[in-house]
Amino acid sequence: MNDPSRHLDAMRTATPLVQNITNYVAMNVMANVMLAAGASPAMVHARGEVAEFAGLAAALTINIGTLDAEWAECMALAARAAVERDIPWVLDPVAVGATAMRRDVGARLLDLSPTVIRGNASEILALSGAVARGRGADAADEVAMAQRAARDLARASGAVVAVTGPVDFVTDGARTAHISNGDPIMPRITALGCSLTGVVGAFAAATPAFEGTIAALAYYGVAGEIAGRTASGPGSFQPAFLDALYAMTGAELDAMTRVALT
Amino acid sequence: MNDPSRHLDAMRTATPLVQNITNYVAMNVMANVMLAAGASPAMVHARGEVAEFAGLAAALTINIGTLDAEWAECMALAARAAVERDIPWVLDPVAVGATAMRRDVGARLLDLSPTVIRGNASEILALSGAVARGRGADAADEVAMAQRAARDLARASGAVVAVTGPVDFVTDGARTAHISNGDPIMPRITALGCSLTGVVGAFAAATPAFEGTIAALAYYGVAGEIAGRTASGPGSFQPAFLDALYAMTGAELDAMTRVALT
Amino acid sequence: MNDPSRHLDAMRTATPLVQNITNYVAMNVMANVMLAAGASPAMVHARGEVAEFAGLAAALTINIGTLDAEWAECMALAARAAVERDIPWVLDPVAVGATAMRRDVGARLLDLSPTVIRGNASEILALSGAVARGRGADAADEVAMAQRAARDLARASGAVVAVTGPVDFVTDGARTAHISNGDPIMPRITALGCSLTGVVGAFAAATPAFEGTIAALAYYGVAGEIAGRTASGPGSFQPAFLDALYAMTGAELDAMTRVALT
Repeated sequence: MNDPSRHLDAMRTATPLVQNITNYVAMNVMANVMLAAGASPAMVHARGEVAEFAGLAAALTINIGTLDAEWAECMALAARAAVERDIPWVLDPVAVGATAMRRDVGARLLDLSPTVIRGNASEILALSGAVARGRGADAADEVAMAQRAARDLARASGAVVAVTGPVDFVTDGARTAHISNGDPIMPRITALGCSLTGVVGAFAAATPAFEGTIAALAYYGVAGEIAGRTASGPGSFQPAFLDALYAMTGAELDAMTRVALT
Repeated sequence: MNDPSRHLDAMRTATPLVQNITNYVAMNVMANVMLAAGASPAMVHARGEVAEFAGLAAALTINIGTLDAEWAECMALAARAAVERDIPWVLDPVAVGATAMRRDVGARLLDLSPTVIRGNASEILALSGAVARGRGADAADEVAMAQRAARDLARASGAVVAVTGPVDFVTDGARTAHISNGDPIMPRITALGCSLTGVVGAFAAATPAFEGTIAALAYYGVAGEIAGRTASGPGSFQPAFLDALYAMTGAELDAMTRVALT
Repeated sequence: MNDPSRHLDAMRTATPLVQNITNYVAMNVMANVMLAAGASPAMVHARGEVAEFAGLAAALTINIGTLDAEWAECMALAARAAVERDIPWVLDPVAVGATAMRRDVGARLLDLSPTVIRGNASEILALSGAVARGRGADAADEVAMAQRAARDLARASGAVVAVTGPVDFVTDGARTAHISNGDPIMPRITALGCSLTGVVGAFAAATPAFEGTIAALAYYGVAGEIAGRTASGPGSFQPAFLDALYAMTGAELDAMTRVALT
């Protein structure tokens, strides 16, 4: 894929309304990331409106980062509404291996046919049933170790699965891609993975899931590289990253993208 | 009004303690905006203390952005306490037209005599009962279209109504004002509208509501213009905006304010 | 203590997983502060997992900033789990004197043997049972006034007590220390105190509580001084502060620390 800009343009033209059920840590950053990218985020999670709102949205994302029993119910309601309305929905199984509650909620959401699953290597391993170390949201397992699990998970669930890390891996069970963009400081900033899930949702609203996910990951990684040129630490990285998401042209994206389809 | 600095000075001198029930996306930004402006924000929303805390505060703001049934009850408790104690309270009806739950909560809060209502054009149209497009928090309807609705709403409710957008409109049902300050990138940053509601609350603690709302909007827009001079995107805009709110002198505010009273 | 860098190094080497139950305003900033410092924060608060997760963590912090009845229960569950597992836990009694609910929750958590208590002067006075003015989270009382209360509280509870302000004070009931680092703009930025509590937790995971708390406060204050050199207001201070936490060397810390043991 040498022209992810096509998908960036499609997303920006659509300015998709994306409903996000995400954790408290990520809400603000995720909304700013999505606005900078050109999407229209809405954080809506309450039982009384979560399914109705999915009727307005072009995509849905669900992140289990700060979980409780009530939110878990609302997540399931929203996912069902997305499936009924045939809009894409993206699952972000934060720290899914860490506690029994997370394993249970992760398994229940997996049964609700996510369009895309995005996690780090530990999370994809845990969600697929393989052994993982489950230490918070750290990418304690190497991305490479999770690639087999991702392929199995994609085949079993029908979802596109993205394992993000120093090199990202995307598969729909048949096709695979590696994306080698990004900056090494990104794991030192909270909620950048969660926010990426929102960008994947926005791309998936306008592009088929496999191509859209790859393009979203490339766009995100390229913005990281641009921000890394001027940042002097994780603090100054953040405004520079939002500026890069906002200002990036399609030509810049295509020129800097490093995607290998396999 | 050529001297909004009088009201800025009054607010900074009072450093009013303002209680805010706001959404999870906005909480941090709103607190930082209010601290930079010179107010003392407190985010207090729990059933067990929300009314008691209103007894300590000089103003209250209520934002329905991330809503659920329990929070809706707490909002009503706080609004009633504010009315009983005769402190100003400001309603921010985020996306009030989008779902049945929001329409219901919006109507219930409107019955509790807000001092000021601040929303975008869609929200003011929806809250007034006029037709709105209800697409999340976007300002899909033009500000101009909402001016009649704002005037009707101000007359029916007794509140000062502010419709914010590229040009802001404020009315108490009789008097009206247009404020033409601001920067076009501001809608690309989440929670700046929500945070403005906090600044309106802080001004209203020290100044009559109509004049205080106009001065707050002018101050906020001027800070946006100052930030826009140096920002290169929505990321770098944010720290520059907080710096401008913090450093702005009364003379700068008066010199840059563009308010037309009608 | 002229070598707080020993404790900074120990913390960075351990990259301790610290579980934080904190308020919505602070969650994002606190996670970024802790990541920049070199710790591994996890925001986990739900009844269904809060105690189980404490079994994975190296330290726990509890902040009562945005409180409700359910969260209060989860805080107690987590604190009990921390005590059972013998990991340090840090109490941040935000605005504990402001409402009856806060006084009640503060007293209940105090009974659960916190390892460290960190608050401003008002909060330490209120928690110790002395008279406090309870006006939100402001440091309305002078640090000096709270020192006797801190010593009494430390003796009664067995905790290390830190009173933070323009000059910080730390005591274990017998020993005391004053830390004179920091920048005067820090109170104008929300959640920096809350985030400091996370850093104290991270240091306490790797160092005895009295020494670890002093080193954490010195490190934090020195980062503030470094950020203050380049910041032009509370907005630009924040990225500069994260960059300073991230980049600070042990030599810089030791050279700039101003700690007086008494």
